[in-house]
Amino acid sequence: MRNLTLLTDLYQLTMMYGYSKSEQKDKIAVFDVFYRGVGNNYAVACGLEQVIDYINELKFNEEDIEYLRSLKLFDEEFLGMLEEFRFTGDMYSVKEGTIVFPQEPILTVKARLFEAQLIETAILCILNHQTLIATKTSKIINNAKGEAVAEFGLRRAQGPDAGIYGARAAMIAGCSSTSNVLCGQMFDVPVSGTHSHSWVMSFCDEVTAFRAYADMYPDKCLLLVDTYDTLKSGVPNAIKVFGELRAKGYEPLGIRLDSGDLAYLSKEARRMLDEAGFENAKIFASGDIDELILRSLHNQGARIDCWGIGTKLITSDGCPSLGGVYKLAGIEENGVIVPRLKKSDTPEKITNPGLKKIVRFYDKKTNKALADIIALKDEDFSSLTSLEIFHPVYTWKKTLLTNFYIEELMIDIFKGGKQVYESPKVMDIAKYHKEKIGEIWGEYKRDVNPQIYKVDLSDRLYELKKELLTKNTF
Amino acid sequence: MRNLTLLTDLYQLTMMYGYSKSEQKDKIAVFDVFYRGVGNNYAVACGLEQVIDYINELKFNEEDIEYLRSLKLFDEEFLGMLEEFRFTGDMYSVKEGTIVFPQEPILTVKARLFEAQLIETAILCILNHQTLIATKTSKIINNAKGEAVAEFGLRRAQGPDAGIYGARAAMIAGCSSTSNVLCGQMFDVPVSGTHSHSWVMSFCDEVTAFRAYADMYPDKCLLLVDTYDTLKSGVPNAIKVFGELRAKGYEPLGIRLDSGDLAYLSKEARRMLDEAGFENAKIFASGDIDELILRSLHNQGARIDCWGIGTKLITSDGCPSLGGVYKLAGIEENGVIVPRLKKSDTPEKITNPGLKKIVRFYDKKTNKALADIIALKDEDFSSLTSLEIFHPVYTWKKTLLTNFYIEELMIDIFKGGKQVYESPKVMDIAKYHKEKIGEIWGEYKRDVNPQIYKVDLSDRLYELKKELLTKNTF
Repeated sequence: MRNLTLLTDLYQLTMMYGYSKSEQKDKIAVFDVFYRGVGNNYAVACGLEQVIDYINELKFNEEDIEYLRSLKLFDEEFLGMLEEFRFTGDMYSVKEGTIVFPQEPILTVKARLFEAQLIETAILCILNHQTLIATKTSKIINNAKGEAVAEFGLRRAQGPDAGIYGARAAMIAGCSSTSNVLCGQMFDVPVSGTHSHSWVMSFCDEVTAFRAYADMYPDKCLLLVDTYDTLKSGVPNAIKVFGELRAKGYEPLGIRLDSGDLAYLSKEARRMLDEAGFENAKIFASGDIDELILRSLHNQGARIDCWGIGTKLITSDGCPSLGGVYKLAGIEENGVIVPRLKKSDTPEKITNPGLKKIVRFYDKKTNKALADIIALKDEDFSSLTSLEIFHPVYTWKKTLLTNFYIEELMIDIFKGGKQVYESPKVMDIAKYHKEKIGEIWGEYKRDVNPQIYKVDLSDRLYELKKELLTKNTF
Repeated sequence: MRNLTLLTDLYQLTMMYGYSKSEQKDKIAVFDVFYRGVGNNYAVACGLEQVIDYINELKFNEEDIEYLRSLKLFDEEFLGMLEEFRFTGDMYSVKEGTIVFPQEPILTVKARLFEAQLIETAILCILNHQTLIATKTSKIINNAKGEAVAEFGLRRAQGPDAGIYGARAAMIAGCSSTSNVLCGQMFDVPVSGTHSHSWVMSFCDEVTAFRAYADMYPDKCLLLVDTYDTLKSGVPNAIKVFGELRAKGYEPLGIRLDSGDLAYLSKEARRMLDEAGFENAKIFASGDIDELILRSLHNQGARIDCWGIGTKLITSDGCPSLGGVYKLAGIEENGVIVPRLKKSDTPEKITNPGLKKIVRFYDKKTNKALADIIALKDEDFSSLTSLEIFHPVYTWKKTLLTNFYIEELMIDIFKGGKQVYESPKVMDIAKYHKEKIGEIWGEYKRDVNPQIYKVDLSDRLYELKKELLTKNTF
């Protein structure tokens, strides 16, 4: 396990230094992680396990202290406090794989200001990244309509961690395998892969290369057919070798197309395979595919059974960052947590004050999610039988919820610095995610013009927010 | 140092398994790393130090072997070979910070096919990432016209490595500091940072928060002024505290704007600071800035002295991946390396065969780069006094080079598995890069409609390529 204690912005340390000079440092503060943007689609929360590991490993070792001393920004008293540093606070979070919406707290830290400040940067880095990739993957999976999607973006990922934890997030959001062997080892997820163009080029000719591969894995023979000429050379050679396999009692897995006009080539390859009696051989496709190209290939009637998705998934091409933030929601004054709010000219930048939770309302008949309420942590909705909720922007748009059951989405992760939640195995998180994504109507998940899922504030939170907004002092 | 031996695609291992069954595995192969795309701009090569570390740490440990055994894809003979695995080959590369162009080999591996195959994925992951971020940074630096640019994207980076090594690449390409403390420690680069909105919000009011910060760092007081209202509250409060500082004999550094209309706010803040007698106080700006916004703010006459760039630099927003590839250029047959080439219907996907090098021609008068030649490694250009080069696509466009001197860009990194090159310190690489980027005319570097820098093949390489292209066998 790596020690990432110095994985923080310098200003966290200069602020901690400032707090260390007064009673500020021991005040309990509440910070929420959430992403902004009214009108954004859903996100798939991801990365909690790595946040837990990070918190458990937090420790300034000797070299860290020595390095900080060399910056000549801090005094010895402060460096002494860092030597003693450990996380003693509380943390609440939604489970990984949960569907979340803008403004909802994904994770909340309640801890001494001194501690809560240090951990902001790494928590955001981890959650922003994995939630981004899980969300991108989810869009791809939605468009794949049940066809298998294999992740293989490692070579284009933004560094090793992006490859490893991006693949982890992709598996949680529904990929069926990854090419990343280290991710497979670390998280016990299925790995897959066959051969590349260089395999074919390293032999005297294509059919010899195919035959060598088939000899090696006769029961899982998948051949890459576009090294020289897909339809004139690759597919006919594959069919020849598939025939030889069948004579030995094996059925081939299929072929992979990695370039060219995938719509045309897949239809022609399908016809050729079928005519040769290999109706069960699958066609895999790869090569700069994302959710839009996938949908377009479906619309063109491409005959593709499985997808290999690399670059555009692992970098979340088109939207390579999630703007998750970590905002102060309350701070202790005279022993009580006083809610805080950040004003802004941009309405969606105004934060929600206080220690909060998310309550999701489900329809008893369909078991689909109806709406979410962001509420204060001590509110109780268990005996409620009907609830009127407001559109988050156009408050005159109201909906009356009845015949529902509720679920609270945030659970305890740390209490007094002690971990009280065990992260499930990745494939179990994936199973949980599959359940949760199934609870969201398709109208909220579509790529273009999705319906806006209703996320309202509880009456008490709404009143508190209004009160703080109209007050002049903060 | 992390062991990233399993940071590879599964197909590298299945292919190695295939090679292990024949004499293929010991054949010497040549692979080139390059990026494609006629018409692309230049790139800043970056990441070599991490490639060297990766190669030196390569070792399948017991758990790795156990994991691979559990996949039931490999036999014991092969797993035994992996236990013995180390890199015994040669590696050539351009130095980090070098300006490179499409099709040019950035790094070349000459090693047993068995070894060269394993390392493809990690090498690409490392070089693609750091070269991408260095290149994005270079575009930002070009537009900053000498004004300081601080990197602070860690919280939005695609995982910890993307934050750490992205910041490293940003420093190489010209940033003056990073907020990333771990990067500062690992690579001895300047770190910077002051305070955030939560600092201001944790105090009873803004002026108290500013005063506390000024007390702590009187000689480097930089205040974030947009927590509540930039012009009505933030700037006036900053001016008040700056006055108090001056009374104690200190001059303030300046203010930071992080939201709102940066063009308008910076002009108003400048006027207010000047009127209060703080003409030397600098204005820092941050908040979703990239090279386009930076240029636009310059065009609007914004009064910004220094830039903090986060998300859009650290994720290379707009182009979050570099399509670097690793392609077979030759393979041993009967003891001799026989050049190989991959045909493709897409002309720029046709590879350049053989063991190669890059020769850059400089004008003796201006010391600016004139053109590059990709040549075979054993060619000698040292006694050349004139050279006719061709446009890479429109070969009837010719240029006669005279009065030049040359530089060979690729150097030896590993010989027979032994590291023969010591990576310089990051700030020395940055200095080297600054020199090299200065050798490229601005016309090749501009964002919109850049001139295409001439990269030609040597006559011998051109003839070899033609010969292989017209041959039917590969």
